[in-house]
Amino acid sequence: MQDLKQYIEDNKQRFLDELFELIRIPSISSKPEHKDDMYRCAEMWKKLLLEGGADKAVIMETEGNPVVYGEKILDASYPTVLVYAHYDVQPAEPLELWTTPPFEPEVRDGKIYARGADDDKGQGFMHTKAFEYLVKTDQLKCNVKFLIEGEEEVGSPSLPKFCEENKELLKSDVILVSDTGMIAPDVPTITTGLRGLCYWEVEVTGPNRDLHSGLFGGAVANPINVLAKMITQMVDENGHITVPGFYDDVVEISDGERAMMAKAPYSEDAYKKALDVEELAGEKGFTTNERTGIRPSFDICGIWGGYTGDGAKTVLPSKAYAKISSRLVPDQDHEKIAELFCKHFESIAPKSVKVNIRHLHGGQAYGCPIDLPAYKAAEKACEEVYGERPVPVRSGGSIPIISDFERILGVKSVLMGFGLEADAIHSPNENFPLEQFFNGINTIPYFYKYFAESGK
Amino acid sequence: MQDLKQYIEDNKQRFLDELFELIRIPSISSKPEHKDDMYRCAEMWKKLLLEGGADKAVIMETEGNPVVYGEKILDASYPTVLVYAHYDVQPAEPLELWTTPPFEPEVRDGKIYARGADDDKGQGFMHTKAFEYLVKTDQLKCNVKFLIEGEEEVGSPSLPKFCEENKELLKSDVILVSDTGMIAPDVPTITTGLRGLCYWEVEVTGPNRDLHSGLFGGAVANPINVLAKMITQMVDENGHITVPGFYDDVVEISDGERAMMAKAPYSEDAYKKALDVEELAGEKGFTTNERTGIRPSFDICGIWGGYTGDGAKTVLPSKAYAKISSRLVPDQDHEKIAELFCKHFESIAPKSVKVNIRHLHGGQAYGCPIDLPAYKAAEKACEEVYGERPVPVRSGGSIPIISDFERILGVKSVLMGFGLEADAIHSPNENFPLEQFFNGINTIPYFYKYFAESGK
Repeated sequence: MQDLKQYIEDNKQRFLDELFELIRIPSISSKPEHKDDMYRCAEMWKKLLLEGGADKAVIMETEGNPVVYGEKILDASYPTVLVYAHYDVQPAEPLELWTTPPFEPEVRDGKIYARGADDDKGQGFMHTKAFEYLVKTDQLKCNVKFLIEGEEEVGSPSLPKFCEENKELLKSDVILVSDTGMIAPDVPTITTGLRGLCYWEVEVTGPNRDLHSGLFGGAVANPINVLAKMITQMVDENGHITVPGFYDDVVEISDGERAMMAKAPYSEDAYKKALDVEELAGEKGFTTNERTGIRPSFDICGIWGGYTGDGAKTVLPSKAYAKISSRLVPDQDHEKIAELFCKHFESIAPKSVKVNIRHLHGGQAYGCPIDLPAYKAAEKACEEVYGERPVPVRSGGSIPIISDFERILGVKSVLMGFGLEADAIHSPNENFPLEQFFNGINTIPYFYKYFAESGK
Repeated sequence: MQDLKQYIEDNKQRFLDELFELIRIPSISSKPEHKDDMYRCAEMWKKLLLEGGADKAVIMETEGNPVVYGEKILDASYPTVLVYAHYDVQPAEPLELWTTPPFEPEVRDGKIYARGADDDKGQGFMHTKAFEYLVKTDQLKCNVKFLIEGEEEVGSPSLPKFCEENKELLKSDVILVSDTGMIAPDVPTITTGLRGLCYWEVEVTGPNRDLHSGLFGGAVANPINVLAKMITQMVDENGHITVPGFYDDVVEISDGERAMMAKAPYSEDAYKKALDVEELAGEKGFTTNERTGIRPSFDICGIWGGYTGDGAKTVLPSKAYAKISSRLVPDQDHEKIAELFCKHFESIAPKSVKVNIRHLHGGQAYGCPIDLPAYKAAEKACEEVYGERPVPVRSGGSIPIISDFERILGVKSVLMGFGLEADAIHSPNENFPLEQFFNGINTIPYFYKYFAESGK
């Protein structure tokens, strides 16, 4: 593949132009008003796949946003790789914190700034270009299938059913995904674990209307005070989640594996400095990497209630709300945890309020063995470009569909991602360094080469 | 005053038309964008006073919203009554819960529905009509001054200075105020106590940007979780506020007075049913009326942070905010309490976050002795119209300026209010029953009569 670097060099501007066109479509899956944008984005992906060399590419309906499926089947004897990516993105709020508008991509200081620049338009797009290179230069020795969905950021609610109904179509030997990150620009990384997720919205109702805080304050339970207390009770002084049974199925990691994990480059000072916090906080007895990699977490993603405008309004509100998420680890079952949470949260509510819980979504945690042939192929591909063996890491993030793929399709996924922590995915000023972007396109073709050579 | 009832009957529609014109001006003092409405509302008040028979009425600038001052000075030997009211109103949010728009008054089922219908446009307006009657029928035997301000709902920040600078102009024997309520439509009530108030906005900052809750969750302090815990720590299991020194100056009420208070009509079942709560909550060892009347309270009036839109966004936010208020009782000093609160709140913040506290406003509590001549005059006026002696009650609400009047002008206030609990002041669908409105206009002239007869 001596011509690969030159191919990328020759097509740089076109690659960026195409990616920017994709980014400009505000395909925010959590907002119903963007429904049309989801279809526009799917159409663009279909076009990219066909132009890249797919034999066919189609937009397939699901119960939610459509899926784009594409394929190039060369030979029944070749191994088959299913590339998974998602075309939807997170909401861009708070908008006022973006330096440039989230859906008008711009390159500054060697980085692409935009919502989706990394997650997952930028990373997904790399695969179409690596594929294009292999097809055009006749070096592809795998069958390739593409599955591009539009609901990853809301927990892929429709994709499991789609997979159930299309098992034959999606049949493959491995699933290849770039939706994760690297420890540092010079430290290639393959993600071997993902946390699962539960996400709820809770509503706490006190009095049946907003009350005057003077006339009633002190005698009627304030739902904000109560919600704050309930949230506080969910985690104890040691950072343990107090839901009974919560840790029952958590896989305890051996001291040996914890020692290996501890070898990953990490500077607590740099970490704190990057976040501008004086102290870190988390479960007692675990390091930062362990807290995000092998232990569950409990975060309030949003909270609101009462008067939130300018100035002072003296109100004892009727309602308070919170969006609550818990990250899970192998082998916690997200449905079981969701049930345990609801039961416990309701049980700690005082009689002075009513509680209503909506379970918004969930997903299982995932683990990938490092002796898998596809893992080895990814390892070699990274070595080819970066000159060193990639580090296997357990990520704190969740891609719920990855464990669903295993359950439904019976196929493992290899998570070879090129994002960086500083990419600020899900945050204002999301970005993706050009170097990561082009290195990704440079690495992926080697995966196909070594995976084909492994004979699966 | 045999013709008083007839006078009200003959002018009913005009009274309502004039009040509605006043209500239609959205004079929301906490929102800077309503600055012009404050002046429009002041102009309307000036017109009402002049039409009612004032010798002069002027709009006077303050450091904030203007004050309307009017007077009718008849005879130096007459006692002088200063009528205080406010022309500003609370914000109307949440707008979607109003049956009819808040600034388009409508009479339904015998009640005026609008923001300010009671608090304090409806109640303040009654005084202009009682005054008008006395002037037109030549029965006024007091000098009358009017002081109508536009910042009561934000804590009257400019009025103390205005009073300091206009002591001679505002000189009077008593201040008469209708900005409080009655226990029931057939139970005349004079408010003898008001709670003081402290109001803060707190900002808790965790990481310097919103983070991905998967990649960081469990290792970095979430400012919403932390804020919830800090709020929870402010009140203990017995409903006691935990700020050191908070109760040091609280006047303990004698068992005898508590027994008298307990005679006020109150049904816990009816109270709970009206609010649709299964249980009440508050400080251990005190009844509902005591909890709101003679004990301080701690309420979160608003809270916000993170993602609050539709659906699920998995974010570990950078910031969380709360609007916090505490009602105070005699003899707590609001400035001292504000200091104690800040010190304590900062002291319980973990090092993983930064805390910023803005002290938005405050006011002292107030008490009125029931042997004051003006109190006796109000008592007799109520007896004249309602046929029974009014109940003296301590209200849980705050009118911070009332204690400032005493401090600066050296004059006590008599709080003869006609609102009802069901009027939903500060809430959606604020209303004022026509019966209360007309009874108020019917009662006030007798106050002047008996106060003049008392020779002060």
